[in-house]
Amino acid sequence: MAVKNDRKKSTYQEIAAEAEVSIATVSRILTGASKVKPETRDKVLEIMARHGYDTADLQMVKQPQTSGIIIFNIPSLGNPFYSQIASGAKAAARRHGFQLLVNEEHINSNTIATLTGLIQKVNAAGIITTNHVPTPLLRKLYDTLPLVQCCEFDNELEIPYVSIDDIAATKATMEYLISLGRRRIAFVNGPMRYKYARQRLKGYTESLEKAGMAQDPALVIQLPDVSYDMAVSAVGQLLASPQKPDAFFCISDVYAAAVVKSCARSGINVPRDMMVTGFDNLDIASMVNPAITTVNQPKYQLGFSSCELLVDLINNPQTGVRRILLETELIVRESTSPLIS
Amino acid sequence: MAVKNDRKKSTYQEIAAEAEVSIATVSRILTGASKVKPETRDKVLEIMARHGYDTADLQMVKQPQTSGIIIFNIPSLGNPFYSQIASGAKAAARRHGFQLLVNEEHINSNTIATLTGLIQKVNAAGIITTNHVPTPLLRKLYDTLPLVQCCEFDNELEIPYVSIDDIAATKATMEYLISLGRRRIAFVNGPMRYKYARQRLKGYTESLEKAGMAQDPALVIQLPDVSYDMAVSAVGQLLASPQKPDAFFCISDVYAAAVVKSCARSGINVPRDMMVTGFDNLDIASMVNPAITTVNQPKYQLGFSSCELLVDLINNPQTGVRRILLETELIVRESTSPLIS
Repeated sequence: MAVKNDRKKSTYQEIAAEAEVSIATVSRILTGASKVKPETRDKVLEIMARHGYDTADLQMVKQPQTSGIIIFNIPSLGNPFYSQIASGAKAAARRHGFQLLVNEEHINSNTIATLTGLIQKVNAAGIITTNHVPTPLLRKLYDTLPLVQCCEFDNELEIPYVSIDDIAATKATMEYLISLGRRRIAFVNGPMRYKYARQRLKGYTESLEKAGMAQDPALVIQLPDVSYDMAVSAVGQLLASPQKPDAFFCISDVYAAAVVKSCARSGINVPRDMMVTGFDNLDIASMVNPAITTVNQPKYQLGFSSCELLVDLINNPQTGVRRILLETELIVRESTSPLIS
Repeated sequence: MAVKNDRKKSTYQEIAAEAEVSIATVSRILTGASKVKPETRDKVLEIMARHGYDTADLQMVKQPQTSGIIIFNIPSLGNPFYSQIASGAKAAARRHGFQLLVNEEHINSNTIATLTGLIQKVNAAGIITTNHVPTPLLRKLYDTLPLVQCCEFDNELEIPYVSIDDIAATKATMEYLISLGRRRIAFVNGPMRYKYARQRLKGYTESLEKAGMAQDPALVIQLPDVSYDMAVSAVGQLLASPQKPDAFFCISDVYAAAVVKSCARSGINVPRDMMVTGFDNLDIASMVNPAITTVNQPKYQLGFSSCELLVDLINNPQTGVRRILLETELIVRESTSPLIS
């Protein structure tokens, strides 16, 4: 604990004010009751030393013992995209003697108290987030415990992540469709609050520009949710319009499956009259008929690497913020290739 | 604590021996350190009283405080069958102020130590199992903490469960196929270690008997795993044989999707030349083309009811063992109905 010398000291309140942190943070540093970021800790200790506190013993205060439990947070258990990611994360956790539990939660201002309560209850060693988290809440969580973002990440904060290069993956797929002679490529997108939706739209737009093709707003379908039924309706309407596309780039295999179904209902031959590409390489992409060309995300590896980063952060809090983008690949199936089917 | 009178007492070892329980169980009753079944507790206290212990205060020992965390154990995060069940269980948990965390584990002799370690670490209030657990391990878990079986259950033990009547659901579907004039109905089944696989096979056999139709062993495909790729291969072989069926009853929509794909590859028209039924009503059943007729399991309700039973068991350990079978329904889609498609 901090040993006071005999001259009059600044209060902890004054220390906190000068360091621009809360008293709770100062208290956490003094008691070691929970993790504090190394920079914050160093800053507070430096100020305390300047104010006459003997901080030598504080430098030695150990980070608190945790349960060895890692929380893997996903927005929906019903989204098959996350299952292989969780498996990868679980494997990495086990390798290092940690246990991984899955929590289903949309992290927002309504749910953050429940989540932090849970973190305390299980005395979690760290957390992996996979979905969009509002910036202030993400910062708050990262101040509370070791955190790594997987897939969705916040570019504004200095917080580690493992993800893919959405723009590059989209451009590669668009170039492929254009190389097959497609000129009216529709784009089926998810909610713009997601990094992946914004970046894939950017990749789509830049690909059209590069190819000297005008972007037709009628061909961009923006959906509020990754829902199959919603996509079947929206795509059905576009197929019935006079401005029919000759291909669909879908930001999800779920949407692509909806396009394949809509085409079957409208008697449109895939791939001859309509090419379709998806994203993620979910099981559904190879189960529908024709099977769907898609961008493979290295899902298992995304989970594994995220958890490796997290364990490193737990064991070495001084580790700098690392950011990793993994490679994707285009998997060509029947929905773009008449030769395969 | 147990107050000893002045005359010489039997040791706890002797009490345990007479009650036919372990010393650990006696200790748990004395300290209230974890849950013990009411019958066991009553028996031990009765024997202690007979041996001159004053057990009056022990009758009042409270069940231990737990974290309010319920573990929902599933064999695979990649199996979409469990996601809606988990959502139902989570809703029920929240309703009662509990939190639900998902653990992915095949519970067997290799993994039981990890699981019980986890239960201790998070100080779990209870657990819901969804998959096959070997009988001795299930008994051990149930002795450790409140437990409810969801979907798969063990008929040999007096442990609560919520599930469906697999035999009745299978018979209803088989009668439907027979009523449509099908006479050579193939059966695609999963591993026989599962209750659902044994009971659905029983329902299949009894339906054929009732209809006076001989069971052709060549039409029963028994697969070691619920794998789409495996089913595509096995079904493809049967379709190429001279003993082709005129319908498929599949114990999973994943298998049914594989049959639809195999038929498309072999140029067989579904439903005209081959009717197909699945089981579970997963998203995939309506996403493939033609959409698959299937048995709907009330997945959300299975999870919700399991967790309601569990919370009741946590709050009232004296509650008797309750067993619930929920209703299923046949959802007719294009794979059996030319009129719909």
